[in-house]
Amino acid sequence: MTKNVLVLPGDGIGPEIVAQAVRVLDAVNEQFSLNIQHESALVGGSAYDETGSPLPEATLTKAKAADAILLGAVGGPKWDKLDMSVRPEKGLLGLRSNLELFSNLRPAILYPQLADASSLKPEIVAGLDILIVRELTGGIYFGQPRGIRTLENGEREGFNTYVYSESEIRRIGRSAFEAARQRGKRVCSIDKSNVLEVTVLWKEVMEEVAKEYPDVELTHMLVDNAAMQLVRAPKQFDVMVTGNMFGDILSDAAAMLTGSIGMLPSASLDAEGRGMYEPCHGSAPDIAGKGIANPLATILSVAMMLRYSLDAKEAADAIEAAVSKVLDLGLRTADIASEGCETVSTQAMGDAVLNAL
Amino acid sequence: MTKNVLVLPGDGIGPEIVAQAVRVLDAVNEQFSLNIQHESALVGGSAYDETGSPLPEATLTKAKAADAILLGAVGGPKWDKLDMSVRPEKGLLGLRSNLELFSNLRPAILYPQLADASSLKPEIVAGLDILIVRELTGGIYFGQPRGIRTLENGEREGFNTYVYSESEIRRIGRSAFEAARQRGKRVCSIDKSNVLEVTVLWKEVMEEVAKEYPDVELTHMLVDNAAMQLVRAPKQFDVMVTGNMFGDILSDAAAMLTGSIGMLPSASLDAEGRGMYEPCHGSAPDIAGKGIANPLATILSVAMMLRYSLDAKEAADAIEAAVSKVLDLGLRTADIASEGCETVSTQAMGDAVLNAL
Ligand SMILES: CC(C)[C@H](C(=O)O)[C@@H](O)C(=O)O
Ligand SMILES: CC(C)[C@H](C(=O)O)[C@@H](O)C(=O)O
Repeated sequence: MTKNVLVLPGDGIGPEIVAQAVRVLDAVNEQFSLNIQHESALVGGSAYDETGSPLPEATLTKAKAADAILLGAVGGPKWDKLDMSVRPEKGLLGLRSNLELFSNLRPAILYPQLADASSLKPEIVAGLDILIVRELTGGIYFGQPRGIRTLENGEREGFNTYVYSESEIRRIGRSAFEAARQRGKRVCSIDKSNVLEVTVLWKEVMEEVAKEYPDVELTHMLVDNAAMQLVRAPKQFDVMVTGNMFGDILSDAAAMLTGSIGMLPSASLDAEGRGMYEPCHGSAPDIAGKGIANPLATILSVAMMLRYSLDAKEAADAIEAAVSKVLDLGLRTADIASEGCETVSTQAMGDAVLNAL
Repeated sequence: MTKNVLVLPGDGIGPEIVAQAVRVLDAVNEQFSLNIQHESALVGGSAYDETGSPLPEATLTKAKAADAILLGAVGGPKWDKLDMSVRPEKGLLGLRSNLELFSNLRPAILYPQLADASSLKPEIVAGLDILIVRELTGGIYFGQPRGIRTLENGEREGFNTYVYSESEIRRIGRSAFEAARQRGKRVCSIDKSNVLEVTVLWKEVMEEVAKEYPDVELTHMLVDNAAMQLVRAPKQFDVMVTGNMFGDILSDAAAMLTGSIGMLPSASLDAEGRGMYEPCHGSAPDIAGKGIANPLATILSVAMMLRYSLDAKEAADAIEAAVSKVLDLGLRTADIASEGCETVSTQAMGDAVLNAL
């Protein structure tokens, strides 16, 4: 049976890095006879420029029909002054919510070959391997009411709503516990239950979910403490689960601990395991078009896609092994450049991974 | 004229560290003839245990009458199961909001003597000196509506409201710009304006405030990026200004960069510069009563109090110099213990500061 992948290059460095990832996808497709077809569509600022919408109907239709989506990145200063309703980010948020991709898996892994890249001391991060499970279609990102209104005294007031229902919390909780079962069997749920009622409910429901997984340990941590502990001793964590906003902040901090965010893929999954895959880093407009961006996070996103959504574990393993080999060979893009290693272009990095395959 | 200081030891290690800080306050009071009087009152869990309220009327009355407040810390597992309305944290939040202490100044400074304590590489944090200005009486901490309700389908939903008016943003903006004027003349405002309307308004008002301070540079950063940049290259910042929730998270991360959160004081000020002073660290119930807690953050909070609220700059300088001298002498409490240094008790550390004075 044919599997359909929708490729969404997006903005900034998106097209460059996705181009390399697609070459890798094509290679394993042939090598492992995976019967994957792919087509491209517009999203984000480039979609807005061409169609007036950051998420054109045509893209959404294709996305709904696809077995998996590979996304580059969206956004850039060019579109910063647009009204929020048509900003590039709305394309991304629209995909997440329309496809109900509520479970965002963000691994923060330190590749041994890149241990030096971290701003943390080697002993603090060596061997780091944590997974942040972030709720992606609810919370304050989507809560109603929201907006900016004028008060009676004439001044304006901005407001957003941080809201979660039990069922929303339960399903992301289960995602986290399922993931933990495949790993270190420990879930740390992050809340601000000493101040925010919504996270009091969050904590309560996590406790309920934990009962379904007696083999997995559940602990709780306040978000401010979690931010500290990530800096102080990140290896204490296995799986962290949290809401959309806290997850946005903590997953970026965790990714940066590795010093090599250009290496980190992510998956956004729905209840059936269909998903969108993208690098953790953004569209990096400052280096777009220069051919120096690191394509490895996107290539590793292809591996994640093969593993989680396309039932092609061997091909995923092959890609991950190829990336590791390329690092062993001492090839580095500029973002992870290191003394004694060769700094190569986006394209050359893609070539190297293909060779290693 | 007599100045009145209200001392609120609070919970956990609060009483131990405050005791040392009060000794230091008494010493400079005499040495510099400051004419300071102080009395104590209950707050937090210990207040709840004795009166049924984490912020008894008597405490609030005294707090309103005081020229400055010195607080230890509140909270602990003992009170975790209480209803949110009477939890120790409500005592702290009640003080902040009743006294309109909207401007929370949280310096993250790396003491050169403690450079090793950081989990970050020395070159990343050496000389670190940033100030986080956090809005403290608004935002999602206090926004209405809030609570947990039952939906029509029978499931529960938790909700909180993230809200800021222009005037609330303007006054914390001015705080940040005033502080920046005394320092590196750079303010970085943190928002999530690509997703949250309330922070679109935040960003706009910061731009307006910036016009009043042509000598200070304003930049903006998204909160997820800010969390990354704090880990990657914290020295890029001078003053960061942000809302209550983001400020809670980022200021703790920033404090932990130094590896010596036991050294960091904070101030919470109202529009007239009256304020409450407290260590950045919490009540550390796990080490309470053992006599090993670090009193230096509280002692340095006394220095901040003298400087900002009691017009006693010289006494503040003297305390800060004494703390620095004690570190030079190689004395360390357990939290900052280091090879080749002497590990001392809370009381011994207090003695040492008094001697150095
Ligand atoms: C681009 C932005 C809307 C997005 C988010 O905040 O979710 C990004 O930061 C991310 O983490 O994927
Ligand atoms: C104790 C708690 C309510 C408080 C807060 O979240 O503001 C604390 O974390 C702080 O930062 O002072």
